[in-house]
Amino acid sequence: MNQDYIKADPWSIIEEGFDADQVKSSESLFSIGNGAMGQRANFEEQYSGPTFQGSYIAGVYYPDKTRVGWWKNGYPEYFAKVLNAPNWIGINVLVNGEAVDLNKCKSITEFRRELNMKEGWYRRSFVAILSNSIKIQVVSTRFLSLHIDELGVIKYDVTPLDQNVTVGFDPYLDSGITNEDTNWEDKFWETIDVKSDGNQSFITTRTLKTNFYVCTYMHTSLFLDDEKLSVAPVGERSATIASQGYEAQVNQNQTISLLKYGGYTVSTNHDKYELITAARNTIKEAVSLGYQVLLQKQKEAWAHIWEMADITIDGDVKAQQGIRFNIFQLNQTYLGTDARLNIGPKGFTGEKYGGSTYWDTEAYCIPFYMSTKDQQVARTLLEYRYNHLEKAIENAEKLGFKNGAALYPMVTMNGEECHNEWEITFEEIHRNGAIAFAIFNYHRYTGDYSYVPEKGLEVLIGIARFWHQRANFSTSKNQYVILGVTGPNEYENNVNNNWYTNYLAKWCIDYAVENLKIIEADYHDDFERIMSKTDLDWSEVELWQEVANNMYFPYSKEHDVYLQQDGFLDKELITVVDLDKSQRPINQKWSWDRILRSPYIKQADTLQGFYFFEDHFTKEELKRHFDFYEPFTVHESSLSPCVHSIQAAVLGKMDQAYAFYLRTSRLDLDDYNKEVEEGLHITSMAGTWMSIVEGFGGMRIKNDMLSFEPRIPEEWEGYSFKINFRNKIIKVSVTQNDINFELEGDQVLTILLNGEKHTISPQTLLSQD
Amino acid sequence: MNQDYIKADPWSIIEEGFDADQVKSSESLFSIGNGAMGQRANFEEQYSGPTFQGSYIAGVYYPDKTRVGWWKNGYPEYFAKVLNAPNWIGINVLVNGEAVDLNKCKSITEFRRELNMKEGWYRRSFVAILSNSIKIQVVSTRFLSLHIDELGVIKYDVTPLDQNVTVGFDPYLDSGITNEDTNWEDKFWETIDVKSDGNQSFITTRTLKTNFYVCTYMHTSLFLDDEKLSVAPVGERSATIASQGYEAQVNQNQTISLLKYGGYTVSTNHDKYELITAARNTIKEAVSLGYQVLLQKQKEAWAHIWEMADITIDGDVKAQQGIRFNIFQLNQTYLGTDARLNIGPKGFTGEKYGGSTYWDTEAYCIPFYMSTKDQQVARTLLEYRYNHLEKAIENAEKLGFKNGAALYPMVTMNGEECHNEWEITFEEIHRNGAIAFAIFNYHRYTGDYSYVPEKGLEVLIGIARFWHQRANFSTSKNQYVILGVTGPNEYENNVNNNWYTNYLAKWCIDYAVENLKIIEADYHDDFERIMSKTDLDWSEVELWQEVANNMYFPYSKEHDVYLQQDGFLDKELITVVDLDKSQRPINQKWSWDRILRSPYIKQADTLQGFYFFEDHFTKEELKRHFDFYEPFTVHESSLSPCVHSIQAAVLGKMDQAYAFYLRTSRLDLDDYNKEVEEGLHITSMAGTWMSIVEGFGGMRIKNDMLSFEPRIPEEWEGYSFKINFRNKIIKVSVTQNDINFELEGDQVLTILLNGEKHTISPQTLLSQD
Repeated sequence: MNQDYIKADPWSIIEEGFDADQVKSSESLFSIGNGAMGQRANFEEQYSGPTFQGSYIAGVYYPDKTRVGWWKNGYPEYFAKVLNAPNWIGINVLVNGEAVDLNKCKSITEFRRELNMKEGWYRRSFVAILSNSIKIQVVSTRFLSLHIDELGVIKYDVTPLDQNVTVGFDPYLDSGITNEDTNWEDKFWETIDVKSDGNQSFITTRTLKTNFYVCTYMHTSLFLDDEKLSVAPVGERSATIASQGYEAQVNQNQTISLLKYGGYTVSTNHDKYELITAARNTIKEAVSLGYQVLLQKQKEAWAHIWEMADITIDGDVKAQQGIRFNIFQLNQTYLGTDARLNIGPKGFTGEKYGGSTYWDTEAYCIPFYMSTKDQQVARTLLEYRYNHLEKAIENAEKLGFKNGAALYPMVTMNGEECHNEWEITFEEIHRNGAIAFAIFNYHRYTGDYSYVPEKGLEVLIGIARFWHQRANFSTSKNQYVILGVTGPNEYENNVNNNWYTNYLAKWCIDYAVENLKIIEADYHDDFERIMSKTDLDWSEVELWQEVANNMYFPYSKEHDVYLQQDGFLDKELITVVDLDKSQRPINQKWSWDRILRSPYIKQADTLQGFYFFEDHFTKEELKRHFDFYEPFTVHESSLSPCVHSIQAAVLGKMDQAYAFYLRTSRLDLDDYNKEVEEGLHITSMAGTWMSIVEGFGGMRIKNDMLSFEPRIPEEWEGYSFKINFRNKIIKVSVTQNDINFELEGDQVLTILLNGEKHTISPQTLLSQD
Repeated sequence: MNQDYIKADPWSIIEEGFDADQVKSSESLFSIGNGAMGQRANFEEQYSGPTFQGSYIAGVYYPDKTRVGWWKNGYPEYFAKVLNAPNWIGINVLVNGEAVDLNKCKSITEFRRELNMKEGWYRRSFVAILSNSIKIQVVSTRFLSLHIDELGVIKYDVTPLDQNVTVGFDPYLDSGITNEDTNWEDKFWETIDVKSDGNQSFITTRTLKTNFYVCTYMHTSLFLDDEKLSVAPVGERSATIASQGYEAQVNQNQTISLLKYGGYTVSTNHDKYELITAARNTIKEAVSLGYQVLLQKQKEAWAHIWEMADITIDGDVKAQQGIRFNIFQLNQTYLGTDARLNIGPKGFTGEKYGGSTYWDTEAYCIPFYMSTKDQQVARTLLEYRYNHLEKAIENAEKLGFKNGAALYPMVTMNGEECHNEWEITFEEIHRNGAIAFAIFNYHRYTGDYSYVPEKGLEVLIGIARFWHQRANFSTSKNQYVILGVTGPNEYENNVNNNWYTNYLAKWCIDYAVENLKIIEADYHDDFERIMSKTDLDWSEVELWQEVANNMYFPYSKEHDVYLQQDGFLDKELITVVDLDKSQRPINQKWSWDRILRSPYIKQADTLQGFYFFEDHFTKEELKRHFDFYEPFTVHESSLSPCVHSIQAAVLGKMDQAYAFYLRTSRLDLDDYNKEVEEGLHITSMAGTWMSIVEGFGGMRIKNDMLSFEPRIPEEWEGYSFKINFRNKIIKVSVTQNDINFELEGDQVLTILLNGEKHTISPQTLLSQD
């Protein structure tokens, strides 16, 4: 843990007291989003201190020209960057002509931020003595509407505390923004039109190259002690700024409020020539509902989300706050309603990692969305990859593969690769396996097989072809090997026979063949269509099977474990416990070669395989591998502690399970990795959810049934979560003494509890102590 | 071979006919240098076509801010770049007001370039019909004086062929130049002062950060049919340009000539406040000698170099031209007179590979300079590394080493690392071994041991400490291993137990210990001084020996060869012959991962070890390893064919030896690697020399004696070379029928010829058929 200024609270994220050093961290932690757009918690008013400005629109990106030190064939020449979009939140505030700027005040007291996760709003308040010695109170409340997803709302209140003053508000739109991570200082946006119309303003912009048209808009109004003032603002325009000037006399202890509606209308959702019209319509709807109703609807929408997604933890407020923060952020980032979108690793909280989609989606996020939303959401996420299949085949061709072999990109926005480190881009190929696994997982959980003949099988064929071509026969081992890969543990590069990769490769082929046979037998038309479309015949499939059936897996007889890769035992096997603390995190202390030759594991690698394929192994095997690899794992990836937490729980190592849970759930709140300023770790938050539901709750699917083996950390009085299993909603509550199941609806559900079948009736409680 | 427009000629490089597509290639091939400065063969007059401008000053560099895609701890924040220096060659030429520009002429005939290697000058001539239809002949002769190394000379002749005309010359200096490879478009130079003084001009500049002060100067004069005209030019100045304007009436078939002296005076050689004075002095000396005398002295200086360094080949003019081109370029780049300088891989012919010093110097260049110059030159090259020892220790510390362990940088200009690819910078650590080997090689060849106690031993200790710390004990192998390295074959990255690296590591420790013992016994004071300075005691040395004595070497019983690295035999072992030609060069056709998992070898790796330590192995062992590795070697490094040529010759595979010789000697002339535009491969040129002297000549040092086992390719009538062995000059001549040795001086020399001792007397010929 590296910071602890966030106050513990079950439903809110709270900061108290102003500290300029925390501004960038809090900008990340207090980010808000509504699936369609999102923004860092930047101040509305001017701020001359260090800040990282960010406002993002889902699906709007720019292909930045790649810049690397040393070019390698196969790198993408351009790659999609998450774009900082025009600023619509800005409000310059002047009191007797003096700009409010928290970096220039004589004093700041009662500074407080609250992100109310239950209701979905963010509020910042403070009392400041300005440099002209006037004392004011500011309260700013902001939310991005779930009800109207192109709408954001700000209510900015100023109250002079010690004298009558003149307050000036200059709300503005600004398209003169940049990305911090631009490669060549290129312009990403072109401003086409800046327009004001009374208290409405519109800036129309276009992203260069990708031609996304965006209208950034605002509508403003002024209130004195909640009474609307009928004043018209003075409009001003420049090449990239539209502002509206208000001025009002405000007596001591009166509150002047600027209400600002703003947001984006985007050509992905509207005709590009109708963006201003669309914005006017949005404004009209917002104005007709008004602030209070919009806020009420926001609370209701979030209540609806929480109704299904909430996890309660009793007796451990930090753990409770952690899991809600994770669930809240996931829902801010992706709601599953738009098939073109995906779950960016930083969501709407930062620029880092251009591109939005990693294997994180398949490996970590799908279980969360599958269990807490309608199952269509998970299917939409699978279809996202189906829609990118052609690009994945092109991507593989660039690397020398042929005949429809598909390699999904490491990072993508539109199906094209967005990454350029050879050891990752070209070698971290296990991502392909997670994409196949998600199809299996979706079918296992939902029971919906229809996706496989309709779309999934084509993806499985492309992936099987890739593995078949990527493996080669080692005459020396007399088996197939996979050379030169990077596994999930990115602290190894270009290794031979990463066990996880080899295991997934074999499984992918086996699973593709299994489905080919099912579809040949049961879905004749689909089978004919797919075989013809992919130009596949059984003789090719036999070649795949030759590889799968003769795959090599590195193994140590001495330790009776599969080896992470060839040569792992040549390392100097000093466990993390015996590593000097001053050397950690090693990724900030050591040069890359030293990390690579060390035994330290960034995130679950062999154990990730044991997580995916738990039922392929005995609990004794799991224990042996956990006991062998855990001591070398430094968890310097956000995706690591959740898997270890789940496995520790399975193995009854509840202290470890709890410690890993805290680490995953409070990774950003407590800034374990010392980088929260750059944004939050959104995708790993789904892992946090898994560590409760699958770890402590022990939820699995076994023989088409929901199965639970609940455990509870001794620090907790109880916890509960809800699961949507095949359109039946079941709530699981666990205390130190008993386990309760509640079923919604009107149908019974048979589950396994610690291996025994129980049939649960709706509206009755199954309890077990 | 990818181009063949260079005319075969024993002493000159000749191009005939103008082809705009060849301009950049010829700019590289016709480069001139004098050890202190050098320049690409850019046109003096305006040229609006594609060109790569370059003029370079030895030892003047700029630390450019590193730019990489993904930062790794340990990368240098800045690294030295070879700097494009102010242009002093420029002469704008106008004929009746029309600028001469070969990109805009109506016709160009009789275009010819000649680089006369025997005499050290470069001439370009052509007949052009300008766009104003005037026909002129131009002859421009240029050389960088060996006699006055701050001086360059240009004689630029214009002859109107079809009418009387007005010719304008605007010779200029221009400090507004840039580097093509700048990382951030930073300015590298600041112009301090632009000054003209009649027909002399001076621009004083300063490199930013490094504060090298350079005065770029010119002195001009005008001649009509070789008669000096007394006209004063019209000076013009701008912020970065000083020009002098001349105009003259020239009758048809008269020749007007501009004589331009120019060059640089540099603060590394003069007080920075005296640079203009120094330039004036240089001009004065040049003017007093005059063009003809300067040219004569140039011819004499080159005759002196050739007297010692020439290699003749009879009956094969392309082979003859190739070797002379290599010897010429090496002498243009480095003359061994300045201990601060080294042999940059591109010399003065391009910017690529910022930094000037690679392991190429120790592995490839030292033998050439040791044999063709006074032995002090080789010692100076060794001292260059001694002077950087402290920085090498700092460099190792950055990577986590301690206690005086030294890791020399991969690329350097001043001892600091200039490279930033983790797999090279941090992992291509075998370079340390070459630096130790050069000390051994110097002593073996010169018999001068004094360098070791004076300086070399400290270097050996730092290197031994590095290897001791870099190896780790593998409990699984019960031996020491070296994990995560890149060998000389850069088509493998981050491999374990590269045989060459492990072998060198062991040898370095053994050699350091051997010398510690000698110096303890025979150089007591030095021993005390060094042990105290390095804080070394024998108990530490025992730890080194523990590593050296128990080093692991990968070996294949099946093939009876050492393996390039662990896992080599898991590769798909398809030989180069069976690789589709359309796939080559693989570094331009394949993605990096594909190259890495292929068996293809960029340059001699295991065989490099057999080259260094030939007498550690039997000829049968060499043959087995050559036969195993040669078929997988693609020679996509300039440093590869020479080693294979030498070994093929040793093994009597003369066809292969000859083919490799042609490839190494004409690598740039024939542009095998399709990149000559970027500059020449200077360091590999020393390998070409080795492939004649050590390969065909079979020269070795055995038991303190020169030893020869001469062979001759059947394509040649004969060849000869000279060797300076311990201040005795011996000329070796080989024909198809006999072998002759001629000794200069007045002392006898005992040599081995095919294993038998012969004593050669001066001025007599030892012949053997």
